[in-house]
Amino acid sequence: MKAAIFKGKGRIEIEERPKPAIKEATDAVVRVVRSCVCGSDLWYYRGIAPHPVGPIGHEFIGVVEEVGARVASIKPGDFVITPFAFSDGTCPNCAHGFHTACLHGGFFGGGDDGMGCQAEYVRVPQADGTLATAPGSDFSDEVLASLLTLSDVMGTGYHAAVSAEVKEGDTVAVVGDGAVGLSGVLSAKLLGAKRIIALSRHADRQRLAREFGATDILEERGDAAIEAIKKLTGGIGVDAVLECVGTDEANQTAFAVARAGSVVGRVGVPHEVAIDAVGTFFRNVGMRGGPAPVRAYIDKLLPAVLDGRINPGKVFDFVTGLDGIAEAYAAMDERRAIKSLLKVSDLK
Amino acid sequence: MKAAIFKGKGRIEIEERPKPAIKEATDAVVRVVRSCVCGSDLWYYRGIAPHPVGPIGHEFIGVVEEVGARVASIKPGDFVITPFAFSDGTCPNCAHGFHTACLHGGFFGGGDDGMGCQAEYVRVPQADGTLATAPGSDFSDEVLASLLTLSDVMGTGYHAAVSAEVKEGDTVAVVGDGAVGLSGVLSAKLLGAKRIIALSRHADRQRLAREFGATDILEERGDAAIEAIKKLTGGIGVDAVLECVGTDEANQTAFAVARAGSVVGRVGVPHEVAIDAVGTFFRNVGMRGGPAPVRAYIDKLLPAVLDGRINPGKVFDFVTGLDGIAEAYAAMDERRAIKSLLKVSDLK
Repeated sequence: MKAAIFKGKGRIEIEERPKPAIKEATDAVVRVVRSCVCGSDLWYYRGIAPHPVGPIGHEFIGVVEEVGARVASIKPGDFVITPFAFSDGTCPNCAHGFHTACLHGGFFGGGDDGMGCQAEYVRVPQADGTLATAPGSDFSDEVLASLLTLSDVMGTGYHAAVSAEVKEGDTVAVVGDGAVGLSGVLSAKLLGAKRIIALSRHADRQRLAREFGATDILEERGDAAIEAIKKLTGGIGVDAVLECVGTDEANQTAFAVARAGSVVGRVGVPHEVAIDAVGTFFRNVGMRGGPAPVRAYIDKLLPAVLDGRINPGKVFDFVTGLDGIAEAYAAMDERRAIKSLLKVSDLK
Repeated sequence: MKAAIFKGKGRIEIEERPKPAIKEATDAVVRVVRSCVCGSDLWYYRGIAPHPVGPIGHEFIGVVEEVGARVASIKPGDFVITPFAFSDGTCPNCAHGFHTACLHGGFFGGGDDGMGCQAEYVRVPQADGTLATAPGSDFSDEVLASLLTLSDVMGTGYHAAVSAEVKEGDTVAVVGDGAVGLSGVLSAKLLGAKRIIALSRHADRQRLAREFGATDILEERGDAAIEAIKKLTGGIGVDAVLECVGTDEANQTAFAVARAGSVVGRVGVPHEVAIDAVGTFFRNVGMRGGPAPVRAYIDKLLPAVLDGRINPGKVFDFVTGLDGIAEAYAAMDERRAIKSLLKVSDLK
């Protein structure tokens, strides 16, 4: 099969690799219909975070080809959404809704046993717990794109909003205008936020933020952004903050604009972030979040996609095939694209 | 009037001071019936945190003597519980339940205008928002002691439990066995926790922790405590953690024993605490808390005291008059007492 292979900083190529096979009785092998490039893949591509030379990618939807002997709820032919982390769905952490901390779980994204998802086929461990089936077999490209976001980016933005405890009528700030931040805007809207302040400097992202529900766009950063948000909120700060970047500056902005008693929902992987233990304490500002248990959210978000309430697939503004992988990365790296979608095969 | 005066490290004396008068039209002057010494007062007494030479103390209940021209809901003769922070009850932060961040609020505890509460009379700013009236005029010493805890310690323990999102059936760990930690145990029980693990090394506090609802007592600290709690919870960690100390060790223990997706409720003022931004992220462990908005909790806790469901006044195991102030501090400093109560005047 064809698979994207990370070769080192700035180099992604397609190579021929063995099609993955069932390894454990709880595995499934899935033919990839759509995959995509994640903002976190760019950390590797840019040489900022390490990644082994080899397969890459952790987001996809597809059709089940084969299942192991102990797989009960998933069968060949099922159209499935695959979270970026696999999980058994039954351990205490899964039972509490935190599938990314599954005792028998782990993450897609590479290795030599079929778990790089920018490829034609993927081996899915813990298939019963991991895979979510989508009803129907005839979806438009637009709906497929939205279903693909449930694999990571939309579930991650939703996790930011849930972690920040966004509720009906809230004023919300979203720090970060990448695909996750934009999904965060959409999630805040879905949870009933009345006013959504998005921090964005890029015209294309500002446009999509507005379409997703942002009521205010701020181009400021750092102290200027803090001042602007304080001004918009009568000096009080916002009811909920979604931190969708992970840098120290983004975190400091997020904590500073949170009103007393509110929560910063973090989904940006922290890179050298210093949390002010005292300042947050005296303002009763909380923090929650982490790797999104997107599996937990599929049951909620899938109906919203299917009935057209949300269209998160709009974050994809670059579409290519698996053979276009290098350009898919380059377009995101050069900020020509918000997020790149890979059409790997047809659904039927 | 008589007032306790902080004279410097290890020195508290009673002096004669002018009885406070109405200063603002929103003030009340309250005759103190019961006051007490807080664990945080010991930071000053021990010379660890600074406090100006002068009046001290921030917890009391009493009877209203006089009110300013703009006080509407409080009248002379009312028996009142006074939170350790004053607040107008109407600003956006109060409306969100965070009275300790009131835009027109502040803290009792000293100064030259009648706001030291280890005294015969106290001036209460923002009387309408600050004071909670208690129905009735005939309370036993036991009930008065419990009502006094609503001024700070019980409300603070309850804030830890609420911040940690303790719910029915939870397994909870309480770090800290001072009066706040013990109130935290009682609060966790009140919120329906099924298993409450209290970290305590003192026999008298262990006994009270059990009486308040602790199901497990651990004498371990640091890594040994973490290991013991992990063992008790099948390696998963607890559903909620109450951090009632404020040291770095206590915080590290709290965050380490929290299960994936749970929240550490902090009420110990952080002293040189380093929060691990990355470790908490990858386990989706959150934090909330800060200075307790005890005013917000009085409406809930007062009925529980009056109908005998909770008896938080048991944290007082040393009782004296205002003249015994030096001994009240010394007993707590030397850990002969969990918390010292001051009988300042009779209710009637």
